[in-house]
Amino acid sequence: MSEEDVLNPPRGMRDLIGVDAELHEYMVELFKETARRNGFKPIITPTVEYFRLFEKKSGEEIRRSMYVFQDKAGRTLALRPEVTASVVRAYLKEMRSQPKPIRLYYVAQCFRYEEPQKARYREFWQGGLEIIGDPDINADVSAAFTASNFLEELGVKHYYVVGNVATYRVIMGRIGIPEETQDLVLHLIDKDRVSEALQVLRDKTSREDIVELFGKLLNSGIDEALSVIMDFRELGEGYFIIESELAKTREFIELLNQVGFNAAYEPKLVRGLAYYTGLIFEYKTSGGLSVSIGGGGRYDGLTRVYGGEYEYSTGLALGLDRIMLLLDPGKILPSKTTVLISILEGVPLKAGYELVRRIRVKGVEVIPYRARSLSKALSLANRINAGLVVIIGRREYESGSIIVKNMSTGEQKYIGLNDINTFLDYIKGAGTQHPRDNAG
Amino acid sequence: MSEEDVLNPPRGMRDLIGVDAELHEYMVELFKETARRNGFKPIITPTVEYFRLFEKKSGEEIRRSMYVFQDKAGRTLALRPEVTASVVRAYLKEMRSQPKPIRLYYVAQCFRYEEPQKARYREFWQGGLEIIGDPDINADVSAAFTASNFLEELGVKHYYVVGNVATYRVIMGRIGIPEETQDLVLHLIDKDRVSEALQVLRDKTSREDIVELFGKLLNSGIDEALSVIMDFRELGEGYFIIESELAKTREFIELLNQVGFNAAYEPKLVRGLAYYTGLIFEYKTSGGLSVSIGGGGRYDGLTRVYGGEYEYSTGLALGLDRIMLLLDPGKILPSKTTVLISILEGVPLKAGYELVRRIRVKGVEVIPYRARSLSKALSLANRINAGLVVIIGRREYESGSIIVKNMSTGEQKYIGLNDINTFLDYIKGAGTQHPRDNAG
Repeated sequence: MSEEDVLNPPRGMRDLIGVDAELHEYMVELFKETARRNGFKPIITPTVEYFRLFEKKSGEEIRRSMYVFQDKAGRTLALRPEVTASVVRAYLKEMRSQPKPIRLYYVAQCFRYEEPQKARYREFWQGGLEIIGDPDINADVSAAFTASNFLEELGVKHYYVVGNVATYRVIMGRIGIPEETQDLVLHLIDKDRVSEALQVLRDKTSREDIVELFGKLLNSGIDEALSVIMDFRELGEGYFIIESELAKTREFIELLNQVGFNAAYEPKLVRGLAYYTGLIFEYKTSGGLSVSIGGGGRYDGLTRVYGGEYEYSTGLALGLDRIMLLLDPGKILPSKTTVLISILEGVPLKAGYELVRRIRVKGVEVIPYRARSLSKALSLANRINAGLVVIIGRREYESGSIIVKNMSTGEQKYIGLNDINTFLDYIKGAGTQHPRDNAG
Repeated sequence: MSEEDVLNPPRGMRDLIGVDAELHEYMVELFKETARRNGFKPIITPTVEYFRLFEKKSGEEIRRSMYVFQDKAGRTLALRPEVTASVVRAYLKEMRSQPKPIRLYYVAQCFRYEEPQKARYREFWQGGLEIIGDPDINADVSAAFTASNFLEELGVKHYYVVGNVATYRVIMGRIGIPEETQDLVLHLIDKDRVSEALQVLRDKTSREDIVELFGKLLNSGIDEALSVIMDFRELGEGYFIIESELAKTREFIELLNQVGFNAAYEPKLVRGLAYYTGLIFEYKTSGGLSVSIGGGGRYDGLTRVYGGEYEYSTGLALGLDRIMLLLDPGKILPSKTTVLISILEGVPLKAGYELVRRIRVKGVEVIPYRARSLSKALSLANRINAGLVVIIGRREYESGSIIVKNMSTGEQKYIGLNDINTFLDYIKGAGTQHPRDNAG
């Protein structure tokens, strides 16, 4: 502890201030607004959950990197590493009887104890969408479409990498590979350790032909995969599931392409979370960021892990901290005008506040300030880049007027307080301040 | 652990869903918008901080009720019990050179391990304002005014209870009471244990006259207090500080009264946080809620606790969970129209999504849904209380049109897809759904 500077946030975490904080707020509000316009409803779950909620199905890597601790009564808690498990829990507890599909959104900070590096923080923000109770690929498309809408509005060019874990799970299931080994195999594929993954399979089965099929599928496009599995009709029901999953995956890709988003199949895509059961996808950008900016997929049946009935579900989450790295604040943040209301000494404060109360103009922020002198007020106005300064000195106050100074033109005029509309019009016409100006 | 139902959030915490979640989102966005309009800038600090950030100045009660734990590297962390300490830390680390006053806002969840009860949760949401670098009472007024604006827009009738801890701190300081004992005395007053507080003083000083003065001040209005301390000019500089603090307190109250908010002096008001140094206040409501819904005050010099230079500062925080209990969702939440886009089987999904993309009407949410049949689509529309259903069947798709059904009037019409504006106009005119209708 002593080596940590008292002014630093905990290692791997950070403060967002200035333009970064404004971008964060802008993204959060745009994400929520886009989600609502697309029929998603908010859900807010606790930041802290019982550890066991995440224990079962979060995947090896996440489990190892959780912040786990005991509360004063000895309960084992964890800072959430992701939100889907909480949404499923809340669904089972309180939303089972709601008409389906249920469409939910959240924006929430999550925590993973990993080595800090660029675009990877120990506390990070996710914007997520979940749809519960719809087996149709349209649910996946609708969530993806909403997320792409959000990214589009931010000007973030992105493309989808699409996979499907059902293929691999079904095959492994048919040859009796236990679920934990399945998770391990998928985890190895996720880490690009394919030959190790195949070796794990070989150690568990005598069906070398199936291991070979597995290896082939990991290198096939969808059409090729469909033809490869034709020789494995012996998988019975499994064969039809794989066929149907691959067809859905193709439909998902086609539809995204049709509505203007790029998407391509990647057979080795697996994702870190162990609860995925079918279609999965990640968001990539062609910019400088090599990591994905989000992802999601089908987690049908996760409800059963918590004792509920089988329910179809799909969802996704975007990493807002990573997306922030791609944004140009000058292009995104709305411009605004700052009006400094300078109440000079000797004038009752209420004279200023009556004005503050009446100025309600979109894109205008109003700051009441008691200044010792006119020059002090103007100096502050300069430093905070105010567009307009209102000066209420004792003489003006007694005569029921104000002085308004336009800081960019230098123009200065008297306005009577009973002529407030003239003043408001004047504000609307005044020069706005662009966020970039203040980016230092 | 085993006695806890796996579907429950941790004890004392909760899920917000349905109307509660919508109210929460509405409050959060309104708070931020109101803060920005009043010239506050966002700041986002980590949910987790080093324990020692809170150790020194959070006050006995909060210190005892913190969630404290070690990370994997043995660092002692705490879930934040409040946000002001983090803001001061971030100010010292990154904002010292910014023009002052610095105006900051946040909305953040905080954590206290207390016995759960009505309007008291272990995880709770605060909307806060901080102003750093302004000694003038106008800073306190400006923050309070902004918070009252927010409450006013929510229709929450409230009044201020105002006190000032400088009086007590200065007196105790003059007779050499150490800071920790001062904190204890104030803590006892906060808990309404005044005679115990006076006894603690008596044990530490031989100046019975000062203890008596102390007791008198705890029962005096501002004017009376000013006259009582007249006899204690021997306090020297302290006397003038007390006089000036009482005068500021009076100005704060008067100004709030003048702009239409009720405020009254309460000499026994102390507040739980140990970092307050002067004016303090709490928000009360006349409704069913006896606890305060927020509060704040001066914390001049808190910067020094973390090794910084002395800086003037004031701030406040509102308890959003408590405020939510006072809201009428039917009055507050904006009404909206749900449009269900039913894409019937055999129609390519993109036909629906092209429509989704084009419907951008304020207060309208659009849900694309692939339905097996017309009756399934209408049944879902009924259950989710949709105002309009768009039906794209195979025949309509081929002829380039859609069927639009108004669910409240039953009216049904064909609209050509090249006549999208007619459709958008139709949406704007359609019956909106009031949030209350969906409150179940």
